[in-house]
Amino acid sequence: MSLQSIRVVLVNTSHAGNIGGAARAMKNMGLTRLVLVDPEDFPSPNAVARASGATDILDSAQIVATLEEALVGCSLVLGTSARDRRIPWPLLDPRETGTVCLEQVERGGEVALVFGREYAGLTNEELQRCQYHVHIPSDPAFSSLNLAAAVQVLAYEVRMAWLAANDQPSKQEKLETTSMLDTQPVTADELEHYYGHLEQTLVEIGFLDPQKPRHLMPRLRRLYGRCGISKLEMNILRGILTETQKTVRGEPHKRRGD
Amino acid sequence: MSLQSIRVVLVNTSHAGNIGGAARAMKNMGLTRLVLVDPEDFPSPNAVARASGATDILDSAQIVATLEEALVGCSLVLGTSARDRRIPWPLLDPRETGTVCLEQVERGGEVALVFGREYAGLTNEELQRCQYHVHIPSDPAFSSLNLAAAVQVLAYEVRMAWLAANDQPSKQEKLETTSMLDTQPVTADELEHYYGHLEQTLVEIGFLDPQKPRHLMPRLRRLYGRCGISKLEMNILRGILTETQKTVRGEPHKRRGD
Repeated sequence: MSLQSIRVVLVNTSHAGNIGGAARAMKNMGLTRLVLVDPEDFPSPNAVARASGATDILDSAQIVATLEEALVGCSLVLGTSARDRRIPWPLLDPRETGTVCLEQVERGGEVALVFGREYAGLTNEELQRCQYHVHIPSDPAFSSLNLAAAVQVLAYEVRMAWLAANDQPSKQEKLETTSMLDTQPVTADELEHYYGHLEQTLVEIGFLDPQKPRHLMPRLRRLYGRCGISKLEMNILRGILTETQKTVRGEPHKRRGD
Repeated sequence: MSLQSIRVVLVNTSHAGNIGGAARAMKNMGLTRLVLVDPEDFPSPNAVARASGATDILDSAQIVATLEEALVGCSLVLGTSARDRRIPWPLLDPRETGTVCLEQVERGGEVALVFGREYAGLTNEELQRCQYHVHIPSDPAFSSLNLAAAVQVLAYEVRMAWLAANDQPSKQEKLETTSMLDTQPVTADELEHYYGHLEQTLVEIGFLDPQKPRHLMPRLRRLYGRCGISKLEMNILRGILTETQKTVRGEPHKRRGD
């Protein structure tokens, strides 16, 4: 089992030194995949200096324009966050994060650990793309960790979970008895397509008023995001929406199994 | 119980920036006492810059000439170390370190966490002044952590142990920020009513053929059953079904929020 299916995503980083520090922390802990969303200053000699030898991670870093691109193929997305958001979201501490990441990797999934801007963190919209929020239990009186330090803590917990998992090969055997389609988790982009389809359908049946969306979609994202939906289950959920839309539109539709 | 009886000792640090980074990591995790043994470059604006507001820790840092002075009053001394020393020493990982530190503090002891030079670590003589050696489980192929990152990992584990010893206030706070309706889980009978409602609706939209039900309902039960649905979320899911049925039946229905 490898840690290559866990990517670290840094969103809109201001200081190149922090990118270098994050790369070093990743490499120390055996992580290799770095994705930079719209970095302000990269490549940069400051990144190389702080990477202190982890330049291979910087050289192979993927640079993308949007968080959406950074998450393509991911079945589990975790975003670091301060504690108090208006809609409470499933919250993990770093230790739980390590465990959850490793479980996902064992199921064949791809994981993204998403870190926000140095001063402003992640936006609410970005946080709603995450199934879980991760809070590093800092002192409330001085709570903001340096970006590279936050990467260090989570990468450390991922490694601790990985070391523990490599003592216990029994989980692998358990998986082999279940079908792939039913265990394979959906990816973040498949989940986004589902949310789009769901929102559209809720508007069509008159349950969601685009003028007064309230917190309906965030709440549904939070619910489905934490379920660990398999590809088979996603097929069912999408099928329900498609049939609902046909009904609303008065289109003919076949029963399944006909 | 306070963390003031745990001091961080940095030996012969070369880069002032690392002292600042260490101070920030300490303050984030609720540690306050910093002792500098013969620092090469301190005080320094680089330390202040990287401390990012943890200047009170820099201002109150104690500067001493020898490790011996730094350890006065300590009942437990732990030194960070690479793994392979000629004389095998009691070795702790960071998690065990957190536990051992807290046990000592609870007994009224004073603890020192000792960190060596950026490039050369602690000498054998210095390591022999430590009761335990602490090894951060890094990748053997790239094992040397940044000094501030190493302080961050150990300070984090100390805080995790402290939170656990203080009856896990982190989890407590987690609950207090969420509304009751949104955290209170649905009961088994509420879930059964939902499944009945869902099945009925799926038949009405033509997605479920009662003559050929296949494994549709068991799969949906498995999916929703593992989500830990709250009462609020259940209201939303039931509302979607009700609106879908009204649409199928051609009944008038109000938009939510009207």
